[in-house]
Amino acid sequence: MAGMTFDTRHFGEELDSLKRRMLEMGTLAEDKVRLAMRALVQRDQKLIAEIAAGDAAINQLHLEIDDRCFKLLALYQPMAVDLRVLVAIVKINGDLERIGDLAVNIAEASARYITHPPVKPLIDLPRMGDIALRMLKRALDAFVSGDVSEAQAVLAEDDTLDGLKSQIFRELLTYMLGDPQKIEPSIDLILISRHLERVGDHATNVAEDVIFIVEARDVRHQGDPTTRL
Amino acid sequence: MAGMTFDTRHFGEELDSLKRRMLEMGTLAEDKVRLAMRALVQRDQKLIAEIAAGDAAINQLHLEIDDRCFKLLALYQPMAVDLRVLVAIVKINGDLERIGDLAVNIAEASARYITHPPVKPLIDLPRMGDIALRMLKRALDAFVSGDVSEAQAVLAEDDTLDGLKSQIFRELLTYMLGDPQKIEPSIDLILISRHLERVGDHATNVAEDVIFIVEARDVRHQGDPTTRL
Repeated sequence: MAGMTFDTRHFGEELDSLKRRMLEMGTLAEDKVRLAMRALVQRDQKLIAEIAAGDAAINQLHLEIDDRCFKLLALYQPMAVDLRVLVAIVKINGDLERIGDLAVNIAEASARYITHPPVKPLIDLPRMGDIALRMLKRALDAFVSGDVSEAQAVLAEDDTLDGLKSQIFRELLTYMLGDPQKIEPSIDLILISRHLERVGDHATNVAEDVIFIVEARDVRHQGDPTTRL
Repeated sequence: MAGMTFDTRHFGEELDSLKRRMLEMGTLAEDKVRLAMRALVQRDQKLIAEIAAGDAAINQLHLEIDDRCFKLLALYQPMAVDLRVLVAIVKINGDLERIGDLAVNIAEASARYITHPPVKPLIDLPRMGDIALRMLKRALDAFVSGDVSEAQAVLAEDDTLDGLKSQIFRELLTYMLGDPQKIEPSIDLILISRHLERVGDHATNVAEDVIFIVEARDVRHQGDPTTRL
């Protein structure tokens, strides 16, 4: 564009690069939760220990993305939608880091769980994992596409996750009442269901941030920025 | 100051007012957790139901503070420490809202808990509550005073909270193994201990944001902003 200054072009490149890093972080967090659930189902002690050892790569990206957001805010003083994207990335960055932590929490509970005989075949818990991961993936896709209906679909799945969590709790309670040996491992499965619910919560936060970015753009197009500001 | 423009003065007033609102929100969140713990200990069904009904005031403040941060970023394009404070407030705002949610979660678990006879006198759980609330209060005090040592003291308390959580778990496990009637209510106490641990986590996040604000100011005073940027 003829009127584009060097600074604007540079800002655009920086912002695109930042978005890519944030999506890389999203993929790392997603992979970590997926691996944690696989390790639990397969009772893979080595993989569980690896995941429980922490998420240095995610923590590193978390710091980098925060720093880059701050730099871009300080150096370019972006306006309107660019500012919204940056503020949203600061928040999404926090959510993705927490998802990485939750994968660690799942692995910690799994490490305890596999020291006991299996309480039952795990079916609903992996299903919760699949739903939570699908929510996260769709939220990040919506961030890329700016598709509000995709983001809204994420919000709708929260109830499914909540329903499964309650169902898992009631079922495990029956096992615990029937056999005291199953109390301790069942509690770890209950905790894991809570961790997965929270992965879903963070995916919901990401989806809400996408709606915040896009709706503001729509409102601006209607010539009335104050309704959202 | 003679060289101060109207805009700068106006920005300063707006930022002060925003900080006050954030601290009000912090006090609301703190009160909510304190009330939730009191309602649990006193088995006060009415108070529990009130808290579980949600935190409309906190949610309203959450939206208002987010909007005001965004407006200030967009209208004044603040630099350096002012920018850091605003970015920190965006994050702290999210943490305080989650603390309000955790008070609701504590009340939800308490509502189930008091439908059973007491598992045991509650001593360590209220102690966890006191520590988590003290962490939050100190983190918010550190925000006001900019005292890094106060913020660092918050980080140190995280281990105490973790130790109490493990102790509570082991004790409740003994009760559950001895009497199946105690399984269901004990699980709610375990969940409440986890919620309190997370209140502490969010207080830790606030303390870290305070360190981020203050350390950057120190670094700037040393004339080397790039080490932190």
